[in-house]
Amino acid sequence: MATDAAAETELSEYELFLERIQRYTNVGNAAGVLRWDQEVVMPEGGTPARSQQLSALSAVTHEMLTDEETGDQLDALEDADLNQEQAAVVREVRREYDRATSVPTELVEEISKTTTEAHPKWKQAKEEDDFSIFAPTLERLVELKREYAEHVDPDADPYAVLFAEYEPYLDLDTADRVLTRLKEELVPLIDDIADSDVDLATSAFSGQFPEDEQESFVRDVLDELGYDWERGRLDTAPHPFSSGTQFDARVTTRFDESDPLGALTSTIHEFGHATYTQGLPDDHYGTPLGQSRDLSVHESQSRFWENHVGRTRAFWELILPQMQAEFPQLDDVTVEEAYEAANQVYDDNLIRVEADELTYHMHIIIRYEVEQALISGDLDVEDVPEVWNDKYEEYLGIRPDTDAEGCLQDIHWSHGSFGYFPTYSLGSVLAAQIDATMREELDVDTLVRDGEFGEIMDYLNEHVHGHGCLYTTDDLIEEATGEPFTADYFVEYAEAKFGELYGV
Amino acid sequence: MATDAAAETELSEYELFLERIQRYTNVGNAAGVLRWDQEVVMPEGGTPARSQQLSALSAVTHEMLTDEETGDQLDALEDADLNQEQAAVVREVRREYDRATSVPTELVEEISKTTTEAHPKWKQAKEEDDFSIFAPTLERLVELKREYAEHVDPDADPYAVLFAEYEPYLDLDTADRVLTRLKEELVPLIDDIADSDVDLATSAFSGQFPEDEQESFVRDVLDELGYDWERGRLDTAPHPFSSGTQFDARVTTRFDESDPLGALTSTIHEFGHATYTQGLPDDHYGTPLGQSRDLSVHESQSRFWENHVGRTRAFWELILPQMQAEFPQLDDVTVEEAYEAANQVYDDNLIRVEADELTYHMHIIIRYEVEQALISGDLDVEDVPEVWNDKYEEYLGIRPDTDAEGCLQDIHWSHGSFGYFPTYSLGSVLAAQIDATMREELDVDTLVRDGEFGEIMDYLNEHVHGHGCLYTTDDLIEEATGEPFTADYFVEYAEAKFGELYGV
Repeated sequence: MATDAAAETELSEYELFLERIQRYTNVGNAAGVLRWDQEVVMPEGGTPARSQQLSALSAVTHEMLTDEETGDQLDALEDADLNQEQAAVVREVRREYDRATSVPTELVEEISKTTTEAHPKWKQAKEEDDFSIFAPTLERLVELKREYAEHVDPDADPYAVLFAEYEPYLDLDTADRVLTRLKEELVPLIDDIADSDVDLATSAFSGQFPEDEQESFVRDVLDELGYDWERGRLDTAPHPFSSGTQFDARVTTRFDESDPLGALTSTIHEFGHATYTQGLPDDHYGTPLGQSRDLSVHESQSRFWENHVGRTRAFWELILPQMQAEFPQLDDVTVEEAYEAANQVYDDNLIRVEADELTYHMHIIIRYEVEQALISGDLDVEDVPEVWNDKYEEYLGIRPDTDAEGCLQDIHWSHGSFGYFPTYSLGSVLAAQIDATMREELDVDTLVRDGEFGEIMDYLNEHVHGHGCLYTTDDLIEEATGEPFTADYFVEYAEAKFGELYGV
Repeated sequence: MATDAAAETELSEYELFLERIQRYTNVGNAAGVLRWDQEVVMPEGGTPARSQQLSALSAVTHEMLTDEETGDQLDALEDADLNQEQAAVVREVRREYDRATSVPTELVEEISKTTTEAHPKWKQAKEEDDFSIFAPTLERLVELKREYAEHVDPDADPYAVLFAEYEPYLDLDTADRVLTRLKEELVPLIDDIADSDVDLATSAFSGQFPEDEQESFVRDVLDELGYDWERGRLDTAPHPFSSGTQFDARVTTRFDESDPLGALTSTIHEFGHATYTQGLPDDHYGTPLGQSRDLSVHESQSRFWENHVGRTRAFWELILPQMQAEFPQLDDVTVEEAYEAANQVYDDNLIRVEADELTYHMHIIIRYEVEQALISGDLDVEDVPEVWNDKYEEYLGIRPDTDAEGCLQDIHWSHGSFGYFPTYSLGSVLAAQIDATMREELDVDTLVRDGEFGEIMDYLNEHVHGHGCLYTTDDLIEEATGEPFTADYFVEYAEAKFGELYGV
């Protein structure tokens, strides 16, 4: 037990530490503004300067984090008498510090250089539908990432180390258990749906929908959902994303004039991410307590709003009349038809980003299995296309004709990102778990039907957003839902919803 | 003379130094992106986070600049055998380094704190038209800035030191000579114009001009002038400005539906700034050779395009038909009427930012005289309003009824900026000098009338923009115009132009 005088010294030591972390975080957040700018408003010619600006900020934050002083402060504070919040901040910074200092700078630079070269190779390979163009770079990236994992933790499974980069507090065994369960349950369900005779009203939203009217509509939807425009904005971007801080959490979307559901769904998805960011505590801005937990939890918020609100009958009861007011050509569409169109399962789709709520997970699971085998060395790079295609045939009953719509479809590997994909599915699974827990307390459907989203938002703020990184991910899940992470709720939800829709 | 081996070592020492400077510049440029974002797109709620992000970047750049290593590198390089470009880079960094290291951090922080408090005081004082609300803070700022100047150079006139913050290579004597000459020549000229019986067609542009049509028109004008949209963009902002780098030089404007000349003029002005930025050499990005010279030179470029192109008869011959195509209500306006409306002298205007090309300088000269007397101690803060009003009566024959439209009208003092104002007039004077030199080589009026702006742009790129900070300001002026800085050309230009317009 520290004496009062010692506690005082420790506090001021903690405050010094916090100042360092706040500056570090603020420089990182500045880089976030530059990236938003680059995606949304920067003129094309700005690229060379922007790359240098981002490199400079990245070098600055790396040096601030790995500075000896950071290590000394961490050592001192770990011996000090800290409260729960302070201990959480120290825990989070320690984790980042250990990772950053364990990997030699030369390796970080080599990875950075290789990914810079990898992106055009991947793009060319995809355009020319020729995997061999990308293969040598992919092989090099796999080697480098294995080496990276070896530095971080020589005793651990390298893929688990890479996964922990995106999801540090869910161990890979848990993730694997969830994904395996999904595969076991979803493969036969998707199979049954493919065999079903039920025809859903899949063409309810066919026609032409001008971009400006779609924009006006999605802005109204964001209003209705309760997006805080004082702390956010909506723009368009080729690949929708959300970014920012609790004071300024922006969303982007994109419009396809023949597909009004696309913009609606992607806007609600990004809104979900933004609710998390806007819900982080103001007074912890600049510290881990004012930052969101990891990718799966973030994705659980976007998926909650996209699927458990935006794809419900109740939501369509609320929103269809508003959509018809904007687009009179939809006047004859019924709520049931809209609901069916928003929930159709595409059993012949090969592309992840165009997938429905159900088959989406098979795209993830296939990528997960392939990249795990690549990193472990069980799979050679040259065999990726064949293994990829075999898995599509086995799990989804479809086989890509080309690598462009097969293993080359996604950009992530060219970024050197291995272990990122699983978080997409884990987020959806967690969304279902949170939804089930929420429904024990709130009549979600009635609230949605009445456009009363405030109570739902408050619930998520209280149970998820407001904690920042106070808890580790597994603790946060228990705190928010009363039990450990489980696929049960997602499976139950999917079987009930799609069973009813397709009579299977 | 260095041996080859030594030259090699020196080169690599120079390269290390350059790397440091490039990182420093890039972090500063990142802050520029954040400020653009704040003025143009940031939601209001983002302020608290943005302030912290900007403070963090500012602290980082300050530490990079004042790092002992920077000083050691400068010392070593000043003894080395450098070429002209390298020597210029070292000279510019040395200047910044010496300033930054000569002032104690506590004083910098105290000034920063006081200006943060000063802004709301100034705003309130202006709103309530009560100078006494702002006076104590202004007094404190004057003291602090005197102290600042004392640290930078205890032997120099403090106002000269502050002026050098914005204009390091034009000594205050030169500036004073130019401003005194302006006053001597312009006061009687303005007096004559006030007495003139000539009525210009000042209402040629009266009516309503919808914002979206004005925007479409000024975009066409930017196209016509040759703005490089691949490296820029146009947005709206309450106080128009331009910012960025050679790869991404953006402009802003604002629209008043009853005044289409306002947006046109301010857009051309900011375009002028952007041509300078876009014309800086790409391959020196991130170093002083890729950065613009100081405020007066920058203002010379905006004023050149605003006045020596945009307010000429030739320009109105070109642009009026295009303006009439956008606004048919102007169909009966003649080129002469448009020219007169664009060049009317407001002899009863009290507000700097609404002033014409001629009386504008009197607003600057008054502020210059007042702030010089404040810093020297010849004038007490409490006497500022009376002295201010007396000078308006003496020079312009008008007297402000309120401090809000008198000495409180401009924000700059609340930023702690003393010595900034003169650069506005110096820029206009330099624009006339450059214009006169250019006309010895190019038939500017014919080029403008024909919309052939490329040759004018090339001329300015070659003689001004492309040099970056290779030359000091006085050397650049001689290099570009063949003679030292002089007010002769501006006086000649003003007397000819306004003499003809007003028959005086």
